[in-house]
Amino acid sequence: MSSPFTTIKAFADRLESQPVDSAEARMAAAERNGLLTKPPGSLGRLEDLAIWYAGWRDDPRPSLERIQICVFAGNHGIAARGVSAFPPEVTVQMVANFEAGGAAINQLARTFGAEMSVVPLSLDTPTRDFTQDAAMTEEELVEALSAGWSAVDPEADLFVAGEMGIANTTAAAAIAAALFGGAAREWVGRGTGVDETGLALKAAVIEEALALHNAARGNPLEVLRCVGGREIAAMTGAMAAAREHRVPVILDGFIASSAAAVLHCIRPTTLDHVVAGHQSGEAAHGKLLGMIEKSALLHLGLRLGEGSGAAVAIGVLKAAIACHSGMATFAEAGVSDA
Amino acid sequence: MSSPFTTIKAFADRLESQPVDSAEARMAAAERNGLLTKPPGSLGRLEDLAIWYAGWRDDPRPSLERIQICVFAGNHGIAARGVSAFPPEVTVQMVANFEAGGAAINQLARTFGAEMSVVPLSLDTPTRDFTQDAAMTEEELVEALSAGWSAVDPEADLFVAGEMGIANTTAAAAIAAALFGGAAREWVGRGTGVDETGLALKAAVIEEALALHNAARGNPLEVLRCVGGREIAAMTGAMAAAREHRVPVILDGFIASSAAAVLHCIRPTTLDHVVAGHQSGEAAHGKLLGMIEKSALLHLGLRLGEGSGAAVAIGVLKAAIACHSGMATFAEAGVSDA
Repeated sequence: MSSPFTTIKAFADRLESQPVDSAEARMAAAERNGLLTKPPGSLGRLEDLAIWYAGWRDDPRPSLERIQICVFAGNHGIAARGVSAFPPEVTVQMVANFEAGGAAINQLARTFGAEMSVVPLSLDTPTRDFTQDAAMTEEELVEALSAGWSAVDPEADLFVAGEMGIANTTAAAAIAAALFGGAAREWVGRGTGVDETGLALKAAVIEEALALHNAARGNPLEVLRCVGGREIAAMTGAMAAAREHRVPVILDGFIASSAAAVLHCIRPTTLDHVVAGHQSGEAAHGKLLGMIEKSALLHLGLRLGEGSGAAVAIGVLKAAIACHSGMATFAEAGVSDA
Repeated sequence: MSSPFTTIKAFADRLESQPVDSAEARMAAAERNGLLTKPPGSLGRLEDLAIWYAGWRDDPRPSLERIQICVFAGNHGIAARGVSAFPPEVTVQMVANFEAGGAAINQLARTFGAEMSVVPLSLDTPTRDFTQDAAMTEEELVEALSAGWSAVDPEADLFVAGEMGIANTTAAAAIAAALFGGAAREWVGRGTGVDETGLALKAAVIEEALALHNAARGNPLEVLRCVGGREIAAMTGAMAAAREHRVPVILDGFIASSAAAVLHCIRPTTLDHVVAGHQSGEAAHGKLLGMIEKSALLHLGLRLGEGSGAAVAIGVLKAAIACHSGMATFAEAGVSDA
């Protein structure tokens, strides 16, 4: 499916008229939930998840059959500043690993029955070093948003966006700091495994960027253009496209959340179709989830990216939907109510 | 498989000579984990889980193919005191629901590819009201332990024990209080949904029981006999049998944890083959997990029993094993190391 916009403004306009969930299906699902053979509330968050999902699928007794995981990959000019524990060529090497089926996300997609695809974004042309210039031109940002938008299968019934991009925790932290304020130091983490010196370097680089791009603050898409990255922008575009098709989204970790935060800062309701799959081990992820008003399903200390934490959470959503749609009611089973 | 003991002492003796994990397989798995295409530690608890599982299966690159869920059901004399929000006939009604495939655990077993069976334990003969007498005779305890032991498939590669038994959160809280001390009030929770009056009644009933059975404290199996229940004892027997066959166990919620606590108090290492699937919404479960030195994989507010929380955690273990055994190494994928 091609993207319906060719300018940043047209993308922003598109966000003004996106569909909401079906209140009727949501309320019918909540009613069904109350009739199932279990004490009220005893399935905890699984109950909320199933009702949320029913509303977005417009089906009070939904199923989950066509799960799409899309991993976006991009390269970052800022990598040249030495902000990652891994060299930049790892991005393209890992894309090959995704395509060969050898990465973590491949195993997780298979485990939970998801279709997985990889979208490499101009890997030979890293974004610009955002301490010197805007990371992307307007045209490059539109291209990346469009690549994400177009990647979403309108017939999917669940979407997960993952990413690969050496140095992209630095870009994600810069986005978070620009959108929500606070010192750079509060938003940086160890990424793939930098030491204390690396942490301090990341913070310093972000402070430089914030000073250079101060005028962008207050305009979330301009923040994304100035300090983001292609794979991050693609995730922003993909999450917006999923909303367009009422495809629910499970959000992955710190970098995916920075992409979601751009939408949240435009309007918090743009993330109503999104549930947070996990809270990652990246230091500031809990804080970022708080800012976008999401509570994670899983806390397993993952900090890999690729969509891996969201993919593990697919199992939780599957469990929720299976119980909701498959269980007998008290009347059907002849079980006495409380 | 029949049970190898006919007395409580013979069961206790059996616990003296159970197998341990394979240190060789565990260490080989840890070595493999360090070679996989991901930053060190970036799969968080999934890495620990896979290495733990490899040790118990004696296979550095294990798979998970034969998952057994067994739901034990029992009735409780203490139910006549009004400690549950549901009437006691619900136990047998829910057994019929399990057999017909309509309960939450049926949907979860199907979702995660597990074989599920139900073992009703003398449902027509509730245990005695433990404020008046020991819940079970020695013979009845041996029968229940044996039923659990015999239910375990020695060829399974994962075992989950679930339970159904109106009033069994009161029995579980009594076991916890007798084993670990503290006021009854600290161990009671809302179970299937009692109000403040119900909570106070549960605590009062347990205090009566603790006074009557004070002599049992210090002898975990005698605590189980005096204030436990058949389905709880069966879970204790089943978890011990799983250890005998080196079958790893995912622990369910508060009631399953009380069954595990009996083994823990005999010797903490008897639970080395057990991982805590979730922390339930039942108030004292977090405290009980702390006492048995387990940290839950999931915190989703489930408080249903049936093995449901452990069943959801099967998805997490599947994810862990799939990544561990399926991922490419840095060398295989041609990816540069840090």
